Amino acid sequence: VTSGAEASASQQAVRRHNRNLVLRAIAAEPRRSRAQLAEHTGLTKATVSSVADELIGAGLVAELDADRGARGRPAVPLVLNPDGPSGLGIEVNVDYVSACVVDLTGTVRGYAAVGSDNRTLTPGRVLRRATDLAARVVAQSGLPVAGAVIAVPGLVDTGGTVRRVPNLPGWDGLDCARRVRARFGVATRVENEANAAAVAELRSRPELADFLLVSGEIGVGAGLVLSGRPFRGPRGFSGELGHVPVDPAGPECGCGACGCLEQYVGQEALLNAAGLPGVASTQIGAPGGAAGALLAAAARGDQRTLGALADAGRTLGVTLAGVLNVLDVPTVVLGGLYARLAPWLQGPIGEELQRRTITRAIAPASVIASALGPDSAVIGAAVSVIDEVLSDALPPAGADSRQAGA
Amino acid sequence: VTSGAEASASQQAVRRHNRNLVLRAIAAEPRRSRAQLAEHTGLTKATVSSVADELIGAGLVAELDADRGARGRPAVPLVLNPDGPSGLGIEVNVDYVSACVVDLTGTVRGYAAVGSDNRTLTPGRVLRRATDLAARVVAQSGLPVAGAVIAVPGLVDTGGTVRRVPNLPGWDGLDCARRVRARFGVATRVENEANAAAVAELRSRPELADFLLVSGEIGVGAGLVLSGRPFRGPRGFSGELGHVPVDPAGPECGCGACGCLEQYVGQEALLNAAGLPGVASTQIGAPGGAAGALLAAAARGDQRTLGALADAGRTLGVTLAGVLNVLDVPTVVLGGLYARLAPWLQGPIGEELQRRTITRAIAPASVIASALGPDSAVIGAAVSVIDEVLSDALPPAGADSRQAGA
Repeated sequence: VTSGAEASASQQAVRRHNRNLVLRAIAAEPRRSRAQLAEHTGLTKATVSSVADELIGAGLVAELDADRGARGRPAVPLVLNPDGPSGLGIEVNVDYVSACVVDLTGTVRGYAAVGSDNRTLTPGRVLRRATDLAARVVAQSGLPVAGAVIAVPGLVDTGGTVRRVPNLPGWDGLDCARRVRARFGVATRVENEANAAAVAELRSRPELADFLLVSGEIGVGAGLVLSGRPFRGPRGFSGELGHVPVDPAGPECGCGACGCLEQYVGQEALLNAAGLPGVASTQIGAPGGAAGALLAAAARGDQRTLGALADAGRTLGVTLAGVLNVLDVPTVVLGGLYARLAPWLQGPIGEELQRRTITRAIAPASVIASALGPDSAVIGAAVSVIDEVLSDALPPAGADSRQAGA
Repeated sequence: VTSGAEASASQQAVRRHNRNLVLRAIAAEPRRSRAQLAEHTGLTKATVSSVADELIGAGLVAELDADRGARGRPAVPLVLNPDGPSGLGIEVNVDYVSACVVDLTGTVRGYAAVGSDNRTLTPGRVLRRATDLAARVVAQSGLPVAGAVIAVPGLVDTGGTVRRVPNLPGWDGLDCARRVRARFGVATRVENEANAAAVAELRSRPELADFLLVSGEIGVGAGLVLSGRPFRGPRGFSGELGHVPVDPAGPECGCGACGCLEQYVGQEALLNAAGLPGVASTQIGAPGGAAGALLAAAARGDQRTLGALADAGRTLGVTLAGVLNVLDVPTVVLGGLYARLAPWLQGPIGEELQRRTITRAIAPASVIASALGPDSAVIGAAVSVIDEVLSDALPPAGADSRQAGA
């Protein structure tokens, strides 16, 4: 016996499934016509037309000018609507805040970053700064916001709560989504910054199904992608590469342990080893400032900087060899600070992997540089929102958020 | 337009799906009647009866004596057939070979192990020894064999080919399934020993969805279970914990690198540190022989042995803290040699985890001992076969293998 309510729920599930199928087909290959979508999805033309009209009505899909073929009715190409609901990414890092808006097609439509020594500010002031910045970026993009993701350099549990931020005092247990949710009126999640950067990397390199994105800033983290999906760990806390012990009797780390990798290859350790300790305070002003100073010193052949980078590369390589031996991931992607320093790091990292991974002779690992730069975490945060919109295929809740955010 | 062949293929898929559904319902809760199975699966009683008869005919399911209720027809309880097709596990390790037969209910129906210094024998002689042992165990069990899995202490690719066995010269690239396949006439796969042990552990502790099984023998390996499933890595080579670098300038390892964990906490390192180096050669004769010598020395309070175990525990703990920081797995299970030495290892391992895992305050890790002992890899190998039989629900190819194997 099936009740009317059950039949209706089942019909809704079918409609949602069909919407999703059509939307993903449009996302995978833009400019398909309704007839081509019917052929591709196996749905009837009538169903595709009805679903397409619904998606156009929700602002998710747009029609382009008709292609006039040799005969028959002109085919109208469908694309994801570049002026449809967008994803808002916000990043709070140790020495800057940033925000970006990504449209449904994955294009960055607005980005801004400001230096901010967040270790000296209250979390409330930092979040106000980040939210103000985000509001400006949203207003400039002119797009409605479907949702927001805040990237932070710390542990975020599977429920989206910030649990531990070793480099930002006062953030443990903070509900940082509340203020953003209130300001923009949209669903807001919190995500670890390295995991967010891995989402951006995955989108920029869909051919890589399994990789470890190593992200160097003041903190050192990793975003792990397995079988084409971000792996966040059973409790949400994976990827804390910066706290892998290098020397159990080494220098004390901000996390309370001793000899963590971060103490050898993090931004401050690199600047100190290169004889550029002042840069840490003078270069605050934008993400990547410290990388700029190291890059300049390395490019002009400063021996101390070159030695510091070679040492850091070897230490990273030894630690990564251990991780790769356990995980069997074939590719290391250098991100953040390390992406720009890749010309000096890739060699020593690769040598240690070739010396120490047990698969070296049968399946060697490769080390590549991210093409995304220091804005990858905030872009990945925004892309996560788009991924959710496209996989749910639901009309965005915050379609009228343009005013609220401005 | 649907052709007759397509309709038939689709009907076969439905029949197979239903068979699987019924078989899993019987496996999950034995002694269900046909009526209870119909209620549980949502299939009609006629379909359940037809599927049950087919499963009984294939030897996968057996009927018990009818439960006589107060009224109505007596209900016949159905169970997995303990005399049905079995899984054959074979293990080739560095200093022994073993074999076991597990029936459909997961009960071990036969087991044997013999010491064998496999480093001094040709792979052909080792495999002959292992296959002869397996044939004896199969004959004693009296059960037909559905398939075989051979566990080896090395790298096995996703296609089941042995690619690298650091502690067994001559095994790289060997097709060791061929001889077993020929002898027993059944499908045969090769699996890494630590992964096989993780399958056995998972079956004995279904409540643990995510864990790292650390298996210590002459080699040190790990079997990783994520979301209730063995994680073998993108290329099949995950879990090589023994080759995580502890000290990049440390002693040379059999793998060709320096300072691998195995050189500090493997069986031979433990025996040397405990002042029992002779045991490595005199105690060959069964899996766990070396553990027995260490156990006896530790139990009588031998200071050198106690110190060696405490050092090994700390080194294991530091390395595991790094792995847990990257993977966020909440539980370490000590297997093999380490299971028996757990009373001495758990303390120092736990202390290092509590000192060095970044989640220690919000989600501490736990260290437990496997209850399975040194036979877990060979049992897991056999259980893998049963898992395949139950998930495919296909009549076993080798139902007549009793004669062939004997």
